[in-house]
Amino acid sequence: FSSSTPIRATLFPGDGIGPEISESVKQIFQAAEVPIEWEEHYVGTEIDPRTQSFLTWESLESVRRNRVGLKGPMATPIGKGHRSLNLTLRKELSLYANVRPCYSLPGYKTRYDNVNLITIRENTEGEYSGLEHQVVRGVVESLKIITRHASLRVAEYAFHYAKAHGRKRVSAIHKANIMQKTDGLFLKCCREVAEKYPEIKYEEVVIDNCCMMLVKNPALFDVLVMPNLYGDIISDLCAGLIGGLGLTPSCNIGEGGIALAEAVHGSAPDIAGKNLANPTALLLSGVTMLRHLDLHNKADRIQKAILQTIAEGKYRTADLGGNSKTTEFTAAIIDHL
Amino acid sequence: FSSSTPIRATLFPGDGIGPEISESVKQIFQAAEVPIEWEEHYVGTEIDPRTQSFLTWESLESVRRNRVGLKGPMATPIGKGHRSLNLTLRKELSLYANVRPCYSLPGYKTRYDNVNLITIRENTEGEYSGLEHQVVRGVVESLKIITRHASLRVAEYAFHYAKAHGRKRVSAIHKANIMQKTDGLFLKCCREVAEKYPEIKYEEVVIDNCCMMLVKNPALFDVLVMPNLYGDIISDLCAGLIGGLGLTPSCNIGEGGIALAEAVHGSAPDIAGKNLANPTALLLSGVTMLRHLDLHNKADRIQKAILQTIAEGKYRTADLGGNSKTTEFTAAIIDHL
Ligand SMILES: CC(C)[C@H](C(=O)O)[C@@H](O)C(=O)O
Ligand SMILES: CC(C)[C@H](C(=O)O)[C@@H](O)C(=O)O
Repeated sequence: FSSSTPIRATLFPGDGIGPEISESVKQIFQAAEVPIEWEEHYVGTEIDPRTQSFLTWESLESVRRNRVGLKGPMATPIGKGHRSLNLTLRKELSLYANVRPCYSLPGYKTRYDNVNLITIRENTEGEYSGLEHQVVRGVVESLKIITRHASLRVAEYAFHYAKAHGRKRVSAIHKANIMQKTDGLFLKCCREVAEKYPEIKYEEVVIDNCCMMLVKNPALFDVLVMPNLYGDIISDLCAGLIGGLGLTPSCNIGEGGIALAEAVHGSAPDIAGKNLANPTALLLSGVTMLRHLDLHNKADRIQKAILQTIAEGKYRTADLGGNSKTTEFTAAIIDHL
Repeated sequence: FSSSTPIRATLFPGDGIGPEISESVKQIFQAAEVPIEWEEHYVGTEIDPRTQSFLTWESLESVRRNRVGLKGPMATPIGKGHRSLNLTLRKELSLYANVRPCYSLPGYKTRYDNVNLITIRENTEGEYSGLEHQVVRGVVESLKIITRHASLRVAEYAFHYAKAHGRKRVSAIHKANIMQKTDGLFLKCCREVAEKYPEIKYEEVVIDNCCMMLVKNPALFDVLVMPNLYGDIISDLCAGLIGGLGLTPSCNIGEGGIALAEAVHGSAPDIAGKNLANPTALLLSGVTMLRHLDLHNKADRIQKAILQTIAEGKYRTADLGGNSKTTEFTAAIIDHL
């Protein structure tokens, strides 16, 4: 990309603390001279019949056109007759893989100092099918759907990611000893893809054992790939190991090369507008977006500045035990660029 | 119970290290003068058509008659046409609640020193329904079944347990934001039961958030109750916090007051017969069995001796970083009685 033609990217500032932490991202990206022009879209106040949710059709079109976006926290308004904002985005944009890098932040002490793993979650089916019904009074069932198509797709992405990032191992997480057909199909697809990547070690780990191993010694893992619900659970568990969802980036990969990076923490309405929020998760998500765009120099520079600022510890937001305002933390990162 | 009429209890020594660690339990219980007479049953070498598994009908009848039992690890032989041993026991004996106390062992250092919680897992339905099929080629589904009957039953057990053990809080773990009907019904049942126990605090926690909170600060939890698969995952996660499945007891509660305590770790064929196995999980499971029989004095005495032996650290098996033989560790516990 030449510096004269900036890349257009969609920005969903989101709700609650979303606008403040988005402001932080915009300032830092500008200071680092990232060649991005943001196209901002807010969650609507009325249900758009074309999306069946508070997300406007125009905002989805923006991501489809730009193929890249960044999303702050969105609180789905309570009520019936509309779809969850997060699920609408995943569905409408076919965001089939959710990638969550998780690593110990130097200088920010938790019980673990050796975390460095990537969870890659199938993001479109499994337990999230939405297919549920009452069989008779007092008996309900929900369907977990696993398809060869979606399993191969996410497995391909996981191995491709591992190779591109110099990772050595992919672990498929499952419960195929109980769900032999569904998780069995998922594993079969992973095995097929694994054969095409002989340089990457492949293993299969049962989800319960995986969770035990993760809390005992997270260094045992490298890249993990898994069906939807297990990914939901394990990515949060891993985030907990290094300090929580306020520190972990996330990026959703969709068909046709779409990448929608997002902070997966909540919108924290209690501290919204008070200049107290920690923008780290959204910033690091923005960094994953830059990597998706192959802007690795910019990504490295920004990531380093964020990590140095946290490591030095002089400017930290309240959630990390400091007393810096969002704007002070942001300024400190810009100083470190 | 008068001391002249011992209680008959079924003992499944199980496979691999099972017989050695069962021997340890028998010796310690005898030294503590526990009024129990064991009725030993081994896993069969042929499929019993009446159980469709390698478990004999007689062994199931033994548990049904005695209403109380202890089970070592059982490795389900590989092959088709028979059922998993663990699942057969749960099904045939209607073992509807799986209770796993998990607490930090004084003197045995892990990253956590403040764990003291109980997971209570629905043990008969949910994702373990066994109902799975291929819809079309490349599309498979499995059914998660939640019933009002089983949900009320396990919720009742959880609140009853909390009250009987002086616990203050029950947290229902769920993913009802996604599985609104199935997990929604589970929560509804928990709420109904919670109303009958106003002295116990009741809360609902989403499974992903629960896992994050558990690794950040397990002291936030007290008694947790949940559907089958979440229980499988969370009980292993919790075991990991305090050192692993070699240290955590488990007890299955069935209809009609049946209690089948079990060590949930594997049969460790690699060290079987070598006098190296750690009997702690089976011993502590035996203790939960004694509590179920209201033999609290015996339970306290044995539990204290186990914990003291581990805390002193002079006699520890290899998995705990020591070099004691199973028999030496057992003798040390008997000395501490
Ligand atoms: C908010 C919720 C629907 C969502 C999920 O379950 O996927 C969240 O936990 C996540 O991980 O993005
Ligand atoms: C061995 C397996 C079938 C079993 C389960 O999934 O329930 C085990 O993990 C357990 O927790 O007892």
